[in-house]
Amino acid sequence: MVKVNENYLKLKAGYLFPEISKRVKAHTERTNPSDLIKLGIGDVTEPLPQACIEAMSNALHEMANRNGFKGYGPEQGYKWLRDKIAENDYIARGCEIESDEIFVSDGSKCDTSNILDILGGDNQIAVTDPVYPVYVDSNVMTGRTGNALDEGGYEGLTYLPICEENNFQPQVPSKKLDIIYLCFPNNPTGATISKVEMKKWVDYANANNSLIFFDAAYEAFIQDIDIPHSIYEIDGARNCAIEFRSFSKNAGFTGVRCAYTVIPKCLCGISNSGDKIDLWSLWNRRQSTKFNGVNYVVQRGAEAVYSEKGKSQVRDLVDFYMNNADIMRTSLKDAGFKVYGGINAPYVWLKVPDKMSSWDFFDYLLKTSNVVGTPGSGFGLAGEGYFRLSAFNSLENVTSAMERIINI
Amino acid sequence: MVKVNENYLKLKAGYLFPEISKRVKAHTERTNPSDLIKLGIGDVTEPLPQACIEAMSNALHEMANRNGFKGYGPEQGYKWLRDKIAENDYIARGCEIESDEIFVSDGSKCDTSNILDILGGDNQIAVTDPVYPVYVDSNVMTGRTGNALDEGGYEGLTYLPICEENNFQPQVPSKKLDIIYLCFPNNPTGATISKVEMKKWVDYANANNSLIFFDAAYEAFIQDIDIPHSIYEIDGARNCAIEFRSFSKNAGFTGVRCAYTVIPKCLCGISNSGDKIDLWSLWNRRQSTKFNGVNYVVQRGAEAVYSEKGKSQVRDLVDFYMNNADIMRTSLKDAGFKVYGGINAPYVWLKVPDKMSSWDFFDYLLKTSNVVGTPGSGFGLAGEGYFRLSAFNSLENVTSAMERIINI
Repeated sequence: MVKVNENYLKLKAGYLFPEISKRVKAHTERTNPSDLIKLGIGDVTEPLPQACIEAMSNALHEMANRNGFKGYGPEQGYKWLRDKIAENDYIARGCEIESDEIFVSDGSKCDTSNILDILGGDNQIAVTDPVYPVYVDSNVMTGRTGNALDEGGYEGLTYLPICEENNFQPQVPSKKLDIIYLCFPNNPTGATISKVEMKKWVDYANANNSLIFFDAAYEAFIQDIDIPHSIYEIDGARNCAIEFRSFSKNAGFTGVRCAYTVIPKCLCGISNSGDKIDLWSLWNRRQSTKFNGVNYVVQRGAEAVYSEKGKSQVRDLVDFYMNNADIMRTSLKDAGFKVYGGINAPYVWLKVPDKMSSWDFFDYLLKTSNVVGTPGSGFGLAGEGYFRLSAFNSLENVTSAMERIINI
Repeated sequence: MVKVNENYLKLKAGYLFPEISKRVKAHTERTNPSDLIKLGIGDVTEPLPQACIEAMSNALHEMANRNGFKGYGPEQGYKWLRDKIAENDYIARGCEIESDEIFVSDGSKCDTSNILDILGGDNQIAVTDPVYPVYVDSNVMTGRTGNALDEGGYEGLTYLPICEENNFQPQVPSKKLDIIYLCFPNNPTGATISKVEMKKWVDYANANNSLIFFDAAYEAFIQDIDIPHSIYEIDGARNCAIEFRSFSKNAGFTGVRCAYTVIPKCLCGISNSGDKIDLWSLWNRRQSTKFNGVNYVVQRGAEAVYSEKGKSQVRDLVDFYMNNADIMRTSLKDAGFKVYGGINAPYVWLKVPDKMSSWDFFDYLLKTSNVVGTPGSGFGLAGEGYFRLSAFNSLENVTSAMERIINI
């Protein structure tokens, strides 16, 4: 009989979001509330920017006519989109990134997990704790960890805590690691990283020949001008970092699917025989073989994000969600909660009161307020005692949710 | 330094389609022909069905309004699309496939390569020869083969020839294989498989506990009513087969990106400890973790393929390309070429005349006729001496190409 991938059997059964759905379902079936407010999963709620809609509508019209019809596009994305990304997200910020170092894809969830395809199985890997679960699970699935530990986490992975004690800044370790996942602005804590702190990581990586996976999915929410949007704003990052970006949260593309990954051409790994192998070529081969490019219409929509109208409409969307975050942060603070994040990120990271566990607070909030959030422990051991609230909702819902929580 | 995936280094450098592009570029730079006709890559040329355009246009309009806006969809695809697929492609043909056994994706290239994720590395794997190169390369990349062999192919893979001698029917082997890739109507040969022949494979698989990957990307081009469209038309296939389908070739979605994979819930593999593990759950976990669903607008477009208008427009598209195939097949036959395929498939598989090699014929045709095809040897050792011509082009181009070839 065909052998299965044993590593899947190591995965812990209760994945975070299905467990949340199960509890919400049980609650709503029992109490039938008409006013449930979901601030759990980080999914946008506002319509697509008009500039994107117009561009996609025009592109769809092209697909309806023989002369404009587009079949297979380049697996790496159309040059006109890659040029716009390079120009606006990198050159404009002083980062040396060429358009052919950008690979357009259908999502960062795919990219951050598929990237492991091109790397060996015997690298030392570190994630922060708490962390976006996909980084961990994709390592488990590809046999890069041992078994799940009773106390949480997996054997063989290094966990770098981000918590109150270190001001939510992962500390550069004394030991040598091969791959480090960093996500800033951070999901789930809403923390940011300064250029000084980021420089420590770039220097560490270059000194130790490590590779940093930098997930900048939430960069659009940065308000402070001193906070870097890209790791390539730091000298030396081209030699040690792959960056992941997405149109999901800035332009609301969660249901549209478009993202990109940046691999500088000078970035190298090593073969068993000691040869330096450039990672750009490996990823290019991976994408050409196992992926067939992103929908043409979607790429035209993504291109419109960089038009003057698009930029202004994206700014409005970001402002809208950040106003929500501000309301959440200040209301909860005023009510005596200890609150982190929510200033340069669409997530508020709440310290759970009265030494309750994250899941206890989840159940308590659901029962008393009909508000759904995400238990911090779902993101890792160091998330226990915290709770994530997402600013992705209507102003009305956010305001009501805050009133209810404050008046519990 | 970070270790790379060594298996990528085994891949032969000259992938088929880039090599074709290189030679075409050199030719056009030298001769500057205004009338190059490309019958190489299997990419559609006609506009999307109007029913799909309308559905997508409406869906795009929904995305522009808060009430209609859709964020993250189910990773497995929307239920309304999975229901339509089950009803039309399976129940209507007497196949017992439930809608939740269908996983919607952004392409069969992704699915046929990603499916290996859920399986062990130590399965015995067979492909046909010639074969769609993605099946082979994705096995190489994941360490399921040895090195490339000088004479072509890779160590550790079993090759099942499909050629004139066996009437392009892969023969059930005497030895036990764990996984067998079958693609019918076949790319590249245009051959089909009868129910009787398919039954032999299903019986073999059930007797040997093997798993069949059945790629039915070209099923829409079947004209004979006796030829099965799905492997699930054969009794017992639910226990031994995964089927891959795509909207790329029937509805012209190559630039739109939508496909699906069927995994019956009863289908099992085995763990090292001898436990039976259902593959549906593993794939569901894989897709939930490493994929974020298909664009909402695209799924509405795919749904429209099953409307009355959509069905009729897809039939027109298929008829259009099959008329091209018929012209190609009969013109070449009349001119004395030995020709296969082109009756229930959009590919004509030509025996290269005068004992030329496939690549010699490619160069010869390009030079004398400004027509681009695909050398059979690019699909494997047993493809040497053959040449693939695709029916995906305008009637005018197909007719001109045939006139030129005949008058060489």
